[in-house]
Amino acid sequence: MARSVLKFGGTSVADLERISHVADIVAYRAARGEKLAVIVSAMSGETNKLVELARGAAGEHVTGPDFNDEYDVVVASGEQVTSGLLALSLRKRGLKARSWLGWQMQMNTREGHGAARIDGFAEDSGLSEAVEAGEVAVIAGFQGVTSEGRVSTLGRGGSDTTAVAVAAALNADQCDIYTDVDGVYTTDPRIVPQAQRLEKVSYEEMLEMASLGAKVLQTRSVELAMNHQVPVRVLSSFPAPDADNPGTWVCSEDEIVEKQIVNGVTYSRDEAKVTLYGLEDKPGVSARLFALMAREGVNVDMIVQANARGPERANIVFTCTSADSQKAEQVLLGSKDILNFESMDVTRDVAKVSVIGVGMKSHTGVAETMFEALYQKNINIDVISTSEIKISVLIDADYTELAVRALHTAFDLDAT
Amino acid sequence: MARSVLKFGGTSVADLERISHVADIVAYRAARGEKLAVIVSAMSGETNKLVELARGAAGEHVTGPDFNDEYDVVVASGEQVTSGLLALSLRKRGLKARSWLGWQMQMNTREGHGAARIDGFAEDSGLSEAVEAGEVAVIAGFQGVTSEGRVSTLGRGGSDTTAVAVAAALNADQCDIYTDVDGVYTTDPRIVPQAQRLEKVSYEEMLEMASLGAKVLQTRSVELAMNHQVPVRVLSSFPAPDADNPGTWVCSEDEIVEKQIVNGVTYSRDEAKVTLYGLEDKPGVSARLFALMAREGVNVDMIVQANARGPERANIVFTCTSADSQKAEQVLLGSKDILNFESMDVTRDVAKVSVIGVGMKSHTGVAETMFEALYQKNINIDVISTSEIKISVLIDADYTELAVRALHTAFDLDAT
Repeated sequence: MARSVLKFGGTSVADLERISHVADIVAYRAARGEKLAVIVSAMSGETNKLVELARGAAGEHVTGPDFNDEYDVVVASGEQVTSGLLALSLRKRGLKARSWLGWQMQMNTREGHGAARIDGFAEDSGLSEAVEAGEVAVIAGFQGVTSEGRVSTLGRGGSDTTAVAVAAALNADQCDIYTDVDGVYTTDPRIVPQAQRLEKVSYEEMLEMASLGAKVLQTRSVELAMNHQVPVRVLSSFPAPDADNPGTWVCSEDEIVEKQIVNGVTYSRDEAKVTLYGLEDKPGVSARLFALMAREGVNVDMIVQANARGPERANIVFTCTSADSQKAEQVLLGSKDILNFESMDVTRDVAKVSVIGVGMKSHTGVAETMFEALYQKNINIDVISTSEIKISVLIDADYTELAVRALHTAFDLDAT
Repeated sequence: MARSVLKFGGTSVADLERISHVADIVAYRAARGEKLAVIVSAMSGETNKLVELARGAAGEHVTGPDFNDEYDVVVASGEQVTSGLLALSLRKRGLKARSWLGWQMQMNTREGHGAARIDGFAEDSGLSEAVEAGEVAVIAGFQGVTSEGRVSTLGRGGSDTTAVAVAAALNADQCDIYTDVDGVYTTDPRIVPQAQRLEKVSYEEMLEMASLGAKVLQTRSVELAMNHQVPVRVLSSFPAPDADNPGTWVCSEDEIVEKQIVNGVTYSRDEAKVTLYGLEDKPGVSARLFALMAREGVNVDMIVQANARGPERANIVFTCTSADSQKAEQVLLGSKDILNFESMDVTRDVAKVSVIGVGMKSHTGVAETMFEALYQKNINIDVISTSEIKISVLIDADYTELAVRALHTAFDLDAT
């Protein structure tokens, strides 16, 4: 008998009507003979409301660890409510069901509060036995318990990670992430109407897509799925339970027979470019610069170094999120004498556009196709970075949509 | 160093502003050197919202134990939120504080879900040590944990019981119930403007008042306080922390030096009177009748039996809540042949008015004064019941206010 883990996000459980629809889906799958664990998020809007209350109570001076433990207590209540409601809604349909909270399933976490990481489950919680006996386990997502016996949460989007962790622990055959889109697309359909739903995408591609701005799955949940080889499917919670709803499989590269060279085009406008002019060109300078950024919590993405005005001076360009860029600017101005640069320029009118595909590992010419397509549209490339399965370019933000459409066409991704 | 337990109800923690005021009170008391455990209810309105959601999810067919366990999961989230928020608000004021949930303090309960009873605390939770070390324990009221490790709740108003149970477990010097009134009154001030705040009231009197409709304290919390001899004080959460706010002490009779004969006049309009005419007057008939009522969950209050139309027939009158009376009516009509009565009459236009006072134990003439006062106002007495410290009469509901005012005056309770 197949064991399946299903996860429903906030918009899928937004109110009693939507919860009732979710119960219909679960009942339909149970009737097909699947043994089920169902992970739920808080009703949409609820988490934001709770976060606001916690911030309001704490004021601006209670921060960090002094804030995070009680923040977790407040915010985790949202998933608790939904798990109880769905269990009741399933019983209404004659199913055996019960709710499971983080501490009840002993979802142990480490690294403190607010954005804890899952360490593992206790095996004696009874969860696995209950599922095996045919009771639907309705699990409050996003929450765990620390070694001190306190409530922890996994950070925003953490219910995806809960789902994959439960699927791994139960040795489930699949983990279905029900959400408000019907799968993973070749690119953002709002920009490119010809975007296509992918039938399959590899863990590695999904990781790049998740971290590059496609907000379908939380990055950590994809890492966890890859490490435990859990087959994950992204599909819509909106169609009728028996509707044709294939979604997108996120799976191992080996299971994808016909590999596309490029599977997706992603973009991010939340970028800033920092240029430091006239740095001394000697060993240790860039090490000092990026150590400083790391210490201040600035997440540096792309880096380019080039000589300028003769051999003894260099320019360094790097990118980070716009949110981080203000901090970077302040810190750098404060360290001008130590770092010894001549001037600085920060611009936030930039966007990062990337093409992603496992096929790149064995194919050449991807960069050429990409740069040619952008050149044809007169789009200037500012910075380039690459990985084994991805090429990213930084461009003027005004050209974002144009670039995405041009690349989508150039790599034959447009639906016919 | 004094150990105190403070409890704040739903209207006292209704929003962030009110929670901030509660934090001020707690900080003021901590500054006076008290070691504190603080019990909080859910923000007012929150519990009703959660109850409605749970009922909506379950529908009408999921009831009893199939409903109550998940109902508890949903509803207990309200107190969880408030406990986290108050802990943050206290830290904002520089206090050491943390939240404690039912399962964390191992507030063990029995008798299932929905209206569980406290069995006791585990001593190794660390709660007592934390309070002793000067950390304010902010405890989610109303909730516990079953022996199966599931969330339980204590029934409406259960946070009062949590507070008294914690006070008993911590061997606290006092248990202050902060609420939206400034104490226990001789009667309802909305009916009698001359009603006076009582300085002290005995556990027994408070028990009678609580069960007779004065909604200041949950009945079970008073029982528990009496059993463990916990001094309880009822006071208002609205005045400034340093304001004169004596409240009403609920304590042992021995500590009340000047005992009033009558300390309070209470009333309840939520009553119904059921009259069965022409029952057989033979042994076992009323036993069968009230066994039937008990089996159907009808809580019978006053009972009067009188002969009618010769020795072989009797009439029986009993009272119950209006809510129960419909069920009683149905069940009795369905059992007419078995019980063998001639006719039945149910009226809900009745009220119960009571005078309460420990002084009655040693004084005679209370009934006489009561009946004379009602007679003077031409109020007809329908049924009478008495206990050691209480006399109750059933009257026409139209005369409720008049009766309460007349009795308040007759027993010299009016403020001068």
